[in-house]
Amino acid sequence: MLVLTQGDPASIAPEITAAVWQKLRQSGPAFVYIGDPSLLERRIPVQPIRYLADGADVFSHALPVIPLPLAAPPAMGEPDRRNAASVIESIRQAVELTLSGEASAMITNPISKDVVQGAGFRHPGHTSYLAELCQTPGDEVMLLAGPSLKVVPITVHVALRNAITQLSTDLIIRTARTVAAGLRRDFGIPHPRLAFAGLNPHAGEHGLMGDEEQNIIIPALNTLRQEGMTVSGPLPADTMFTPHARSQYDVALCMYHDQGLIPLKTLDMAEGVNVTLGLPIIRTSPDHGTAFDIAGQNKADPRSLEAAIRLAATLAENRRKHA
Amino acid sequence: MLVLTQGDPASIAPEITAAVWQKLRQSGPAFVYIGDPSLLERRIPVQPIRYLADGADVFSHALPVIPLPLAAPPAMGEPDRRNAASVIESIRQAVELTLSGEASAMITNPISKDVVQGAGFRHPGHTSYLAELCQTPGDEVMLLAGPSLKVVPITVHVALRNAITQLSTDLIIRTARTVAAGLRRDFGIPHPRLAFAGLNPHAGEHGLMGDEEQNIIIPALNTLRQEGMTVSGPLPADTMFTPHARSQYDVALCMYHDQGLIPLKTLDMAEGVNVTLGLPIIRTSPDHGTAFDIAGQNKADPRSLEAAIRLAATLAENRRKHA
Repeated sequence: MLVLTQGDPASIAPEITAAVWQKLRQSGPAFVYIGDPSLLERRIPVQPIRYLADGADVFSHALPVIPLPLAAPPAMGEPDRRNAASVIESIRQAVELTLSGEASAMITNPISKDVVQGAGFRHPGHTSYLAELCQTPGDEVMLLAGPSLKVVPITVHVALRNAITQLSTDLIIRTARTVAAGLRRDFGIPHPRLAFAGLNPHAGEHGLMGDEEQNIIIPALNTLRQEGMTVSGPLPADTMFTPHARSQYDVALCMYHDQGLIPLKTLDMAEGVNVTLGLPIIRTSPDHGTAFDIAGQNKADPRSLEAAIRLAATLAENRRKHA
Repeated sequence: MLVLTQGDPASIAPEITAAVWQKLRQSGPAFVYIGDPSLLERRIPVQPIRYLADGADVFSHALPVIPLPLAAPPAMGEPDRRNAASVIESIRQAVELTLSGEASAMITNPISKDVVQGAGFRHPGHTSYLAELCQTPGDEVMLLAGPSLKVVPITVHVALRNAITQLSTDLIIRTARTVAAGLRRDFGIPHPRLAFAGLNPHAGEHGLMGDEEQNIIIPALNTLRQEGMTVSGPLPADTMFTPHARSQYDVALCMYHDQGLIPLKTLDMAEGVNVTLGLPIIRTSPDHGTAFDIAGQNKADPRSLEAAIRLAATLAENRRKHA
């Protein structure tokens, strides 16, 4: 069974959750929601359950919910810090259920940093909180998966200037190891092919435009090759996302956020899924935020959440086979 | 009449030129080639001409060529500095014919920096040589145009680290003015809509990840708005190339090479065209290099050169109407 967190109750999370249940109720994969039933019961039938295992029989006629009350009734589109504790508790319970093995994977709905940090949450987002709860802080790696492409930004939410400074041979090696292990265990790819972008235009053109390829990236790739990994690069980033180029690798490792996210969202905007590798549990999430500006208006596109739930099920099945 | 330069004689330039003549001989647009006839006469019928105007009557049955002898017979795939003078002279003659108005636009085949610089050419590539010949050095701006997208990288062939340093409010303003003028005059867009990417992930998220948006980009956009220009941004670069986002602007101005070239080549690899704005003449070129590794093997894709020739004709026609 999969578990889905509540996300921010004033965001698009409730409406996309309801839409995805409608879409998947007959076919599956089934999931259990941890949150306040009142958020959904005007939209779809919901049924409170006590144990995760009870969800399977319920799913085709109602969304199974492990109830978690909100502190205040949410006004759609208006973030409210009084509900932060409930948002965080939903995540904590989902991790607990997944770590124990009761759930095979967890999917997180979007949350607002402003809301949870305003209530004392000291993490920059979901991922480092999950790593802390799993007692594996520092190992987490963000992979974005779409129908056309999988990418991993090696540096993430920092100013571009600082991304260049943060980049190191060691960071590239550690990230690549986590990615390769994740592709083998959860994506069913026994011999993953990793392609690395250069940092500079034309991958530096042999040192003519920047030296990070020579000094940082190539030494990392050499080490990874010595470990038996199938790696290519550093490749010029602009030509590595064409259909032919993409057919030559399983995942593109990019040096900074936009280098990986531009091609992913350009190709697969609606169906991109965020996967956290490096945790003992399987966790996916839609590749978008809370979208408070359109919350409650039935304008939100549920496809990314649907893709996140489907991918979580696939990854869990792959992991089961791999074990 | 359009003029096409020879490009590097040992590169894919001869074969893509022959392929495009075959494709366009009936429909046009017609073009005249400035180069050594021997490069093409084994592939297609060629006819030496003396004056550009003679090309129109010839084009449907033979490629009209203004002859320019090579110093040494080229071996395909093997760059040879002895032919550098002929490569450069083809460009010089094309500029002269276009500046004088005899040609309505010029298209350049790819050249090798190594070859021409080895022969004393002191420009980093075509564009600054063209600007010098046109006596407008420093005003040139590279625009890449594909069927899905037009982009302008504001900084170009420099290390990413240096691109961040080079970025300035003044550079953004000057580039945007050149781009807006070019879209009005040559692309037939009376009120161009310019979209600007942020430099940092999520366009800096209000200063949380980098301050270049606040300190450099936003002040430039404010100035451009005061001049009456239609500008948007700074936009998060990862979400500005989806179909819906692209429908909101005519050109995306990007802060560094890969930020613009990744989406362009991901979407429009085979048909991207390089257009130089800021010159008194119209100049386009295919968006690829010499490809010595496949030269002479009939593997080269001629679509980018074809698109460059078609676009040159369209731009010339737009400029005529605009005048």
